[in-house]
Amino acid sequence: MYLDVDERSAAFFGLGLAKASSQPVLLVCTSGTAAANYYPAIWEANSSNLPLVVLTTDRPPELQAIGTPQTLDQPKMYSSAVKVSYQLPAPSAAATDQELAYTTYVARKAVSIALAHPRGPVHLNLPLRKPLMPDLKQVPVTTPSQPTQIQLTASLPAEAQAQLTNLFAGKKGLIVAGPVTDGQQNAAAIAAFAEQMNWPILADPLSGVRGFTNALTTGDSLFKAVSQLPQTLQPEVILRTGATLVSAPLTNWLAQKSAPVVYLDADRGWRDHSLSTTTVIAASAEQILPQLSELTGATLAWLAQWQRLDQTVAKTLRENTQQAELTEPAVARVIGDNLPAESTLFVSNSMPIRDIDEQFRPQISGIKVLCNRGADGIDGVNSTALGVSAHSRANYLYIGDLAFFHDLTGLMMARQYALNLTIIVQNNNGGGIFSILPQYQEKTQFEKVFGTPLDLNLPALAQFYAAKYVQVTDAKQLAAEIQRQPQGLTIVEVPVKRAIVPDEQNRLKAQVAKQVEKIFDEN
Amino acid sequence: MYLDVDERSAAFFGLGLAKASSQPVLLVCTSGTAAANYYPAIWEANSSNLPLVVLTTDRPPELQAIGTPQTLDQPKMYSSAVKVSYQLPAPSAAATDQELAYTTYVARKAVSIALAHPRGPVHLNLPLRKPLMPDLKQVPVTTPSQPTQIQLTASLPAEAQAQLTNLFAGKKGLIVAGPVTDGQQNAAAIAAFAEQMNWPILADPLSGVRGFTNALTTGDSLFKAVSQLPQTLQPEVILRTGATLVSAPLTNWLAQKSAPVVYLDADRGWRDHSLSTTTVIAASAEQILPQLSELTGATLAWLAQWQRLDQTVAKTLRENTQQAELTEPAVARVIGDNLPAESTLFVSNSMPIRDIDEQFRPQISGIKVLCNRGADGIDGVNSTALGVSAHSRANYLYIGDLAFFHDLTGLMMARQYALNLTIIVQNNNGGGIFSILPQYQEKTQFEKVFGTPLDLNLPALAQFYAAKYVQVTDAKQLAAEIQRQPQGLTIVEVPVKRAIVPDEQNRLKAQVAKQVEKIFDEN
Repeated sequence: MYLDVDERSAAFFGLGLAKASSQPVLLVCTSGTAAANYYPAIWEANSSNLPLVVLTTDRPPELQAIGTPQTLDQPKMYSSAVKVSYQLPAPSAAATDQELAYTTYVARKAVSIALAHPRGPVHLNLPLRKPLMPDLKQVPVTTPSQPTQIQLTASLPAEAQAQLTNLFAGKKGLIVAGPVTDGQQNAAAIAAFAEQMNWPILADPLSGVRGFTNALTTGDSLFKAVSQLPQTLQPEVILRTGATLVSAPLTNWLAQKSAPVVYLDADRGWRDHSLSTTTVIAASAEQILPQLSELTGATLAWLAQWQRLDQTVAKTLRENTQQAELTEPAVARVIGDNLPAESTLFVSNSMPIRDIDEQFRPQISGIKVLCNRGADGIDGVNSTALGVSAHSRANYLYIGDLAFFHDLTGLMMARQYALNLTIIVQNNNGGGIFSILPQYQEKTQFEKVFGTPLDLNLPALAQFYAAKYVQVTDAKQLAAEIQRQPQGLTIVEVPVKRAIVPDEQNRLKAQVAKQVEKIFDEN
Repeated sequence: MYLDVDERSAAFFGLGLAKASSQPVLLVCTSGTAAANYYPAIWEANSSNLPLVVLTTDRPPELQAIGTPQTLDQPKMYSSAVKVSYQLPAPSAAATDQELAYTTYVARKAVSIALAHPRGPVHLNLPLRKPLMPDLKQVPVTTPSQPTQIQLTASLPAEAQAQLTNLFAGKKGLIVAGPVTDGQQNAAAIAAFAEQMNWPILADPLSGVRGFTNALTTGDSLFKAVSQLPQTLQPEVILRTGATLVSAPLTNWLAQKSAPVVYLDADRGWRDHSLSTTTVIAASAEQILPQLSELTGATLAWLAQWQRLDQTVAKTLRENTQQAELTEPAVARVIGDNLPAESTLFVSNSMPIRDIDEQFRPQISGIKVLCNRGADGIDGVNSTALGVSAHSRANYLYIGDLAFFHDLTGLMMARQYALNLTIIVQNNNGGGIFSILPQYQEKTQFEKVFGTPLDLNLPALAQFYAAKYVQVTDAKQLAAEIQRQPQGLTIVEVPVKRAIVPDEQNRLKAQVAKQVEKIFDEN
């Protein structure tokens, strides 16, 4: 049990626990606006398929709609953000066996629904009558008997097997591995299939695949620099897994529909705003790919070509990422290069996850990278990372100053439960992402409306939360802080200039384009 | 225009502006969880009848449900918290006259609905296509013509006039004035009618009536001490105004239904969980009471009896409220006694508003007391108070440490907009209210689950927000801080002991009961 005074933070903390553990997490709050504060995290759970079980307490029917304090219209308050919303019976003074059996049955049903694919949050609204304290000595000793559930396995019928063989066998394929949702551990299955087929993997930073053989890390930078592939690098088939890609340029390339796309989509999310999918399989890589173990794919030369391209882009990015004075991409690179094995990196929206997409090239598998990449909000990030850290070890959070500020109250959980989290706050004093969007053209109101500088005094904040604070200004110092085992709450402030972001991005893009075109010309 | 990075705070800030100004306030946010963060304030606006006009931006129809980033099912996301939710058309590249006329028409309709009694929040969802920046040079110069609205007046038909004359004329009446909602300025109308009728007013601290002649301030303490009135003090008719009373004991006394209750209920809220109302008039005191100006009510002796009772209770409370070492009721009393004329006091749920109910006895009318007394949450309180302070002058906030912490991010607006607010943080290190509820019996988990101490380091927090900080430990120091004109953000910390709350309350109750019984016996 964890107790958090701010219900908004509490719900994101629960989300983090669910994300790290792949287990259902129960949220409990009082009636009224407390329940409304859960809403942002419930939407994120809905969008990223996490099994939150939300129990809101309420007034009994006879106190509804007559001005009773802290009484809202709760039964359907979560709208379409929850898979189901059940109204539990108000317990009577002496709970009957039937009442107890019903409540247990419906609660189990709700958990079962939360865990059924696509996973997601469910809501139970519990009206209570006074006295609100039960007789604690009178705990029911027997739990009513309940149905058990039999799990089915997903197997490919012969026809589908033939169809996939036709699409995959002997083909120059490309795997586009998107973010893991749902706690599925698909990385090993994807990596094994890629090796079997000699197919390269364009691996999203949240796919869990980076660090495995055949995984390429530069898909975003490649398609930022060029929009088309030469004939020699053109895949004949694309296998896609996971949720919406972090990379917009890679998504835009998919939208050109240059090859059939087979989408392993256990969530039934149909998350494809490129509209390029040609075949959907509502099952995970882990369920399906081992059933195709007889297939062979492309030659090693096909894979080698892609690997060379990837290495060239990576080398160009490395050579052109300033570290002397830390820029945003450089911060991401230093983090990626220095994370200890088996650590967990939680990454914030909006710029950090893009920077990590560009710069994170682990030499080993097993570093877990997580992000609230369902609804992509900058809210509740500290809390989600702390929820994760309550379940995992060696935890890091990489976040900008605005998102860090947005969830200021969330940090309290670190102190209350002595959680270990090192937070790298990339402080560009405002909203950097808008500098690379068209809004930047509107100069007169830009700083007020989009720049939104907050001038955060992070040493004072660290003191408020009894956290360790350190400011770093070069790559070496930052590396040292990351290599230290996270212990308690540490705030590592990295001041970076906001103004240079678009220029830096354009410079990198031009450099990558130059090197990539060279390779294209050679082919 | 105000810009707030945390949308939860932003919405409460807007709520404060609406509360102080009685004008509609427009909220605008990006798509996704940003919109979900508005939810708590929208529920409060729903419950306290404030005209928030919520404009959420969204993706266009062709990007819904396919995994586009930051895209949720927004059209009905506010469920029954909003009066209406309209989907605006996605503007086309060249907006047509028809589109422009439609959007303007529906936007005006939404504002009209927000302002119609019962007032409340409305929602407009606005899908946008790229490019998201309009051509700022091409602003439409003509606004499409729109209908104007004719306001009707509420007049009593002859039959209703006769019915009320029958109920009120020559009667020993009692006015129970509840919290002002809806920005109605009813205090003067209520006070004038009370004088006309020689009726006493049991005035809720949020009624705006305290400080007027005939207003009594001890209703809560009286009915906490005794549950019945002697025959001589029994009213023959009760006139009720406003929303749900802060005082539960007074509500419980109404539930005994000892006299007919006429409820002036412009909000059509039927807010009466005492179920004592016998006649509802869906109009305000200001609209109705001047139409009864020919009536006469009770003798001056009736009024004097009640005034004597009120003075006795007030004297007992004063004599028994420790000030040497500041207790919670004493803090409330010092605040009430020292507020400058024409100042605005925002009061937090949950204990501060109860303490103010007990202790606030202004010698002058014109001090405005406000509270989020719709859904009664402890969320968004700092932000609402700051929204009020952006519209009013001489602003104070009286708040406990938990509510203050809950809306930590809200304080940023004070620094960003140089707002003037003196915050009195009554710091009992945890949730005091639970100590007077049955939960207090459960000793083993109490402190963890209900006490929830946070050990706030307020000097560090003040430094973070560049606020003035002062700690006061006696009544004289506190009085001095309140008498100072609020300038910028000042945090006045008043450490109080949490443990003594129930004992202190019981002691006061017993003393009041003793004095009241004496008066009852004399009658």
